[in-house]
Amino acid sequence: MILYGYFRSSTAYRLRIALHWKGLPWEGRAVSLPKGEHRADAYMALNPQGALPALVEEGQPALAQSLALLDYLEETHPAPPLLPQGARERAMVRSLCQVVACDIHPVTNLRVLKELRGRWGLSEADSVEWYRHWTAEGLRSFEATLAMQGRHGAFCWGDAVTQADVCLVPAVFNARRYEVDLAPYPMLTAIADRAAALPAFAAAHPSRQPDAG
Amino acid sequence: MILYGYFRSSTAYRLRIALHWKGLPWEGRAVSLPKGEHRADAYMALNPQGALPALVEEGQPALAQSLALLDYLEETHPAPPLLPQGARERAMVRSLCQVVACDIHPVTNLRVLKELRGRWGLSEADSVEWYRHWTAEGLRSFEATLAMQGRHGAFCWGDAVTQADVCLVPAVFNARRYEVDLAPYPMLTAIADRAAALPAFAAAHPSRQPDAG
Repeated sequence: MILYGYFRSSTAYRLRIALHWKGLPWEGRAVSLPKGEHRADAYMALNPQGALPALVEEGQPALAQSLALLDYLEETHPAPPLLPQGARERAMVRSLCQVVACDIHPVTNLRVLKELRGRWGLSEADSVEWYRHWTAEGLRSFEATLAMQGRHGAFCWGDAVTQADVCLVPAVFNARRYEVDLAPYPMLTAIADRAAALPAFAAAHPSRQPDAG
Repeated sequence: MILYGYFRSSTAYRLRIALHWKGLPWEGRAVSLPKGEHRADAYMALNPQGALPALVEEGQPALAQSLALLDYLEETHPAPPLLPQGARERAMVRSLCQVVACDIHPVTNLRVLKELRGRWGLSEADSVEWYRHWTAEGLRSFEATLAMQGRHGAFCWGDAVTQADVCLVPAVFNARRYEVDLAPYPMLTAIADRAAALPAFAAAHPSRQPDAG
């Protein structure tokens, strides 16, 4: 499999973790977001959504959208799993994933920050305030959901690593990069640090990718 | 089942369609977004994410996040289906869902428009420009993905109604409400209009909900 990504893309980071976790053979292809390569003709022909990541299997069209890809890997390579067995348990894990993938990431990603600065005249400092505002609200929601779900054990879902951890670790990485105060979220921070230390997560870290600048 | 929603919430609209499609018994509970009821103590105790929709089965904690809930309904009530059988086909449908649920909705929803106007001083007209900008880019991505997937038949996935149609119809409803020019997206517009005419979709329309103002 070929994963089109970028070292700092948190959505590609999710996929790298899952590919390492499941021990699948894959190669990375770097698509630079700051250089706009995700909007260049070559990449748009492959994934007309013009976003990262995209996953390509030999002779097949590209598949896009990171949560769809996580589920695709789960269905095609169920072991080792990243989702629990029961429908309710899966919904609880997916709900956590979507706090990151729907509530935090889309509002804070590069294209939105660029639009705020370019079209709406926000300063660099303003856009950092924006970033921190939505990240804090999303992490609050994630932490409160963990509490409501009666979290116990090492990870988001007891002692099993799931898609929720796969989504959380890149979100916490991003939050630290933008110096979001993590003190109000002790559960998720502890979980993210434990998960990030696992070999599959460590291998997927942005700093360990060939295109890391 | 009890669905906590709001007639104009496009994420609750997705759930209403799926519940009607699957013929499940459910009751609606209105939570007014403009009145801020989704942040009031009563609702936060139920769903600490403070967002719509939430689904409650008797004696069980609430489940949240609309895509997680669509998958939950699919796993617990697989017939009639809203996902195809094959893993690749499911990934293609989910990819379309996530264009709506990750690329369009989170950047254009009420909390973001409020923040733009309240904290960043955008005018009402500015916030409509913002809304149209991201909706247009998301619909472009959706239309291009349909084309790349070699779309044929009545709906997003051949002649089978899927989660992609469930997500698309509310997105097109919203786009029309904000007078987004739909001319560049003839495939998705035709699909949305066909799907919206089906009884399950029609019953879920915002104008037909008891809390419609």
